[in-house]
Amino acid sequence: MVGNSFGEVFRITTWGESHGKAIGVIIDGCPAGLHLDKGYIQKELDRRRTGQSEVTSPRKESDKVEILSGVFEGKTTGTPLSLMVENKDIDSSGYERFKDLFRPGHADYTYQTKYGIRDFRGGGRSSARETVGRVAAGAVAKKVLGLENIKIMGYTLQIGSIKAKKIDLSETEKNEVRCPDRDAGKEMIKRILEVKRSGDSIGGIVELIVTGVIPGLGEPVFDKLDGDIARAMLSIGAVKGIEIGAGFDVATFLGSQNNDEFYNNKGTIATRTNNSGGILGGISTGEEIKIRIAVKPTPSISKTQKTVNITGEDSTIVIHGRHDPCICPRIIPVAEAMMALVLTDHLLRNKLARIS
Amino acid sequence: MVGNSFGEVFRITTWGESHGKAIGVIIDGCPAGLHLDKGYIQKELDRRRTGQSEVTSPRKESDKVEILSGVFEGKTTGTPLSLMVENKDIDSSGYERFKDLFRPGHADYTYQTKYGIRDFRGGGRSSARETVGRVAAGAVAKKVLGLENIKIMGYTLQIGSIKAKKIDLSETEKNEVRCPDRDAGKEMIKRILEVKRSGDSIGGIVELIVTGVIPGLGEPVFDKLDGDIARAMLSIGAVKGIEIGAGFDVATFLGSQNNDEFYNNKGTIATRTNNSGGILGGISTGEEIKIRIAVKPTPSISKTQKTVNITGEDSTIVIHGRHDPCICPRIIPVAEAMMALVLTDHLLRNKLARIS
Amino acid sequence: MVGNSFGEVFRITTWGESHGKAIGVIIDGCPAGLHLDKGYIQKELDRRRTGQSEVTSPRKESDKVEILSGVFEGKTTGTPLSLMVENKDIDSSGYERFKDLFRPGHADYTYQTKYGIRDFRGGGRSSARETVGRVAAGAVAKKVLGLENIKIMGYTLQIGSIKAKKIDLSETEKNEVRCPDRDAGKEMIKRILEVKRSGDSIGGIVELIVTGVIPGLGEPVFDKLDGDIARAMLSIGAVKGIEIGAGFDVATFLGSQNNDEFYNNKGTIATRTNNSGGILGGISTGEEIKIRIAVKPTPSISKTQKTVNITGEDSTIVIHGRHDPCICPRIIPVAEAMMALVLTDHLLRNKLARIS
Amino acid sequence: MVGNSFGEVFRITTWGESHGKAIGVIIDGCPAGLHLDKGYIQKELDRRRTGQSEVTSPRKESDKVEILSGVFEGKTTGTPLSLMVENKDIDSSGYERFKDLFRPGHADYTYQTKYGIRDFRGGGRSSARETVGRVAAGAVAKKVLGLENIKIMGYTLQIGSIKAKKIDLSETEKNEVRCPDRDAGKEMIKRILEVKRSGDSIGGIVELIVTGVIPGLGEPVFDKLDGDIARAMLSIGAVKGIEIGAGFDVATFLGSQNNDEFYNNKGTIATRTNNSGGILGGISTGEEIKIRIAVKPTPSISKTQKTVNITGEDSTIVIHGRHDPCICPRIIPVAEAMMALVLTDHLLRNKLARIS
Repeated sequence: MVGNSFGEVFRITTWGESHGKAIGVIIDGCPAGLHLDKGYIQKELDRRRTGQSEVTSPRKESDKVEILSGVFEGKTTGTPLSLMVENKDIDSSGYERFKDLFRPGHADYTYQTKYGIRDFRGGGRSSARETVGRVAAGAVAKKVLGLENIKIMGYTLQIGSIKAKKIDLSETEKNEVRCPDRDAGKEMIKRILEVKRSGDSIGGIVELIVTGVIPGLGEPVFDKLDGDIARAMLSIGAVKGIEIGAGFDVATFLGSQNNDEFYNNKGTIATRTNNSGGILGGISTGEEIKIRIAVKPTPSISKTQKTVNITGEDSTIVIHGRHDPCICPRIIPVAEAMMALVLTDHLLRNKLARIS
Repeated sequence: MVGNSFGEVFRITTWGESHGKAIGVIIDGCPAGLHLDKGYIQKELDRRRTGQSEVTSPRKESDKVEILSGVFEGKTTGTPLSLMVENKDIDSSGYERFKDLFRPGHADYTYQTKYGIRDFRGGGRSSARETVGRVAAGAVAKKVLGLENIKIMGYTLQIGSIKAKKIDLSETEKNEVRCPDRDAGKEMIKRILEVKRSGDSIGGIVELIVTGVIPGLGEPVFDKLDGDIARAMLSIGAVKGIEIGAGFDVATFLGSQNNDEFYNNKGTIATRTNNSGGILGGISTGEEIKIRIAVKPTPSISKTQKTVNITGEDSTIVIHGRHDPCICPRIIPVAEAMMALVLTDHLLRNKLARIS
Repeated sequence: MVGNSFGEVFRITTWGESHGKAIGVIIDGCPAGLHLDKGYIQKELDRRRTGQSEVTSPRKESDKVEILSGVFEGKTTGTPLSLMVENKDIDSSGYERFKDLFRPGHADYTYQTKYGIRDFRGGGRSSARETVGRVAAGAVAKKVLGLENIKIMGYTLQIGSIKAKKIDLSETEKNEVRCPDRDAGKEMIKRILEVKRSGDSIGGIVELIVTGVIPGLGEPVFDKLDGDIARAMLSIGAVKGIEIGAGFDVATFLGSQNNDEFYNNKGTIATRTNNSGGILGGISTGEEIKIRIAVKPTPSISKTQKTVNITGEDSTIVIHGRHDPCICPRIIPVAEAMMALVLTDHLLRNKLARIS
Repeated sequence: MVGNSFGEVFRITTWGESHGKAIGVIIDGCPAGLHLDKGYIQKELDRRRTGQSEVTSPRKESDKVEILSGVFEGKTTGTPLSLMVENKDIDSSGYERFKDLFRPGHADYTYQTKYGIRDFRGGGRSSARETVGRVAAGAVAKKVLGLENIKIMGYTLQIGSIKAKKIDLSETEKNEVRCPDRDAGKEMIKRILEVKRSGDSIGGIVELIVTGVIPGLGEPVFDKLDGDIARAMLSIGAVKGIEIGAGFDVATFLGSQNNDEFYNNKGTIATRTNNSGGILGGISTGEEIKIRIAVKPTPSISKTQKTVNITGEDSTIVIHGRHDPCICPRIIPVAEAMMALVLTDHLLRNKLARIS
């Protein structure tokens, strides 16, 4: 019931603050017998790391993960996995200034109001740094999904008004914005740098597709697969909207347009279109799962903004610091991790659906 | 962990199938001492009932609610509330035909695949009739919220390509599509009837606003208020997308545009804009909560559709029955109920945030 | 988190008060495909019914169960089962007198203090009548266990100072106190009637054994099988203690006495003794599970007792009504039901222990 | 649902193996604003440490706790507390021998059977070392309880057949077996050393009392206070039974003996006797809570025992190592911690019982 855990049977609990000693995650419910090593998890962490390029934050964290429990002789044992990353490049000096000010678009005001106290250094718990634990846990989840050949791929679909015009997944990891359209990617980078120079930030849209999905994942009526995916995505700080399949386009569709007709595809039941995004009645159909998320511009900008201080007096604020001018490229591994966590949880839960 | 419960401390469990004997909900965790009577709940149920107008399904259910437990001398006692509605106007004969066919856009195929069995009569558990329990429970939740003057209002923003051009909340309940723009409402009704005559259905967009919200609702980092709202909305059968505040528009925004600046509003901290939709860092700010949901066209249409039967053979299907040509008007009380459940749950949870 | 649910993946929620309209249970998480009919559940309910003999309460309830949802064509569908029993023989008149008095040994005082309100009629929610739902759900659980040949048998081991001297399980259901020793059973009945005549009640000890248990049930370190059994048993109103295996005798044992040595029993790993009661490290060993529970004398007695009223003034009370002079015989089906629920839950959860 | 978490709103998750790098606990749901420092937690850890005396295991662990998150400027912030203790004095060499053998009375066989793999070094996850995390979390819980003047005191009541004849709580922490009767304590120590010399171990009984309890703690009907205490106690490795209040003595009691009559004690409702152990209907009465637990003799003994190996072949085993000849003295801080966790959880949950 408490807020820092996610998942029912493959359950993670993240802990740690941006400028604390370390940050980490506990995974409880990982099945025994899964091959797991540190190097594998490290690779996923490296994908979300800061300092990757000039379009990301320059904070220099090596983000070296340690496995403190739950693995013996290279395999999971069914006991909790404790994964930890030490915070190294901490520079809290710049935050003293914001101690009594509420940064617009950030969680400073709401944390202070809810708890009566907040660790203001680097955003404390509400920092994107918290997602280190998610990505580490997501790597383990991806390993479970890999046993079933389920694969998750995320990419940047749009930055500002620049849209990818084609989806070539082999391009995604080759450019700094993770755009599956190389040319659009170049434009996106250009636009981000422009915005960055002006002391501003910019939003975008990220799409995720999942292939190899097994029909049957999802537990009606409240733990629907799409509902759980939505909650997972909205749990990422910058996300303000989500679409499944045709998403908001369904508003203008007729039923005869929107319904995905079934047909026999060489012995397998399939649909010709996929407006449902691979989910019907909250349960996976076996078709590709496809979702899109709206990513807001990073709230930390160096332009002067109006705000109030902790006693409610009007004030202004200028935020210099190590921030991402556009969070899309680095949100992708986090969104993939959350998707992996949802799917793994439902994959396991689905084992209980029938008398066997 | 099982799928038919919603909420952590104000927890509901719905049960029942479309053509079973009855349908109902258990509410556990409702605080003791709340004044509650059957008539009050009945009013909310009447708002979602079928047969209200020619734009809704003609199934004639009086939907009379009974309170079987948890209330004594007009007040809740802290023990579970059991609310039940009998199914009266059941006509399963028309469904025998679909017994072995998978209706496109419905959950027939996924339920059959997941469970190896399904109650095909009227969609069984996946029928919109399940939402009777949600609305009944939502009425109780609204009562709890009412003690704090928190108020939820839903309305139809768009049907097909017809959009409300103004928001006059006093109009909403006066027209059959629950549109806050009377003129747009008329056009919407016309369009729905046109589509209905052609044997088709149509989608739309519903918006919800919540006023009187207290700052502090939401539990980071995974039980964020927006995440829980998203899950709640996506748990409604026809919903394919959700936006919080500015939603997908944030993709094109700069940080300086999107950030809601704080100011001192006669002694209260407030924001001048509300792109965040009243939620920052997963916690309510106290501003109006605003969300929009994408509602797909009802999948039951009387046009001929291609599909497969239970053994995977290609076939066709024509669905005559008692269906809503557009589900937007009747989804509103359901969406409001889900919003009420999320907010009540978080309102109670927030009492535990601090040492007092 | 709310208190009226039990189980994690095979989850029940009971509802209803002693003198309300009905009483019932929702089972969520019952696997699809289980054969189930009303008559089967009815048999278990009949075992806990009042009015069975002169050693039980004379309240005349036929306790006819209805299955309102979750079963289609004789099989479970994976959706929630709603089981309901109407309250028929309600006579609340006798309780008006106790409206403002706290009956010693009952939950009147604690409910009133916690909730500020209580349904005083027949004990309201804290009545043993609530266990109707448990027994109905337990019957379903027993059906799941039956597929694995797991069998639960409860019996009365002791009433007052009269102890069973032998365990002949074929005798248990043949006598009114469910004693596996026919002669001791006769003495027990005699003693109960004697106590009843004097306006008093008496306690006892009930033992449960489970055969056919599969090794591996139980989830360390907090959801241990023995811990969950203990909680289940203590959730029954009259239970004040529990022992697993050798129980309190271990206090005087040496390690060399207490340890159950393993040996190869024709190809299966077994233990020669069973002081552990079939559970090691919170996980079933495959040996017989054996537990004992301490059952307090029914608090409703017709002797004059001192007490206070709702405003705290000293007073006296005499309780005439329809009560069991000894609850042991009727607690047995309830204890078996709770055991069945714990085991079914862990049987299902154990399917997730390993990569398969 | 997964097994390594305890508590609903004050929720802990322990992690770590006996011979892993570290061991720890996450506390989620600790209210913000609680004063907390490392030194305070350390004191409780020191009470459970090995190497305290010749009646405890000689393993030399300093058990220095680190607070990795959740505390800022000396106060909790409402975010997860991560507490960690490094394992220093690890000597796994002695365990290689037991790699393929199942130690009688230990969880080796059940872990191996359930998970197909186990960390055999020092018992791995099933080691008593796991309780470090519990005691650290329990210290935090005690701090919350302290704000309400709720106090928990545990002591050794019996070792083998030697019983405390008087309860002088000021004596408890002065002797090595934590016996509240100084003379009995001396005899107990003598007996333990005797047993130790013979290569054996011995059991006992530990009692806990809680003073200052507020009426109203506990959530019927399944999350009863006594049920949750029972589960908490049985989750401790060596515990095989629990009694609440009069416990198994109720079997021989008449109702008129067992019922605790209420009276007005200078304006407060109280009971003259306390057979109920301070709990009625699963809710605290405000009287002292009193429970007793049966503690089995440590299964690690140096006498030759029969057992089987991993392939099921008969074998023998002799366990030399660093073990407690009697675990009672060191189980006390663990049992107190578990009691503190249960009470804190229910103290917080009780805030939600009524409309306020």
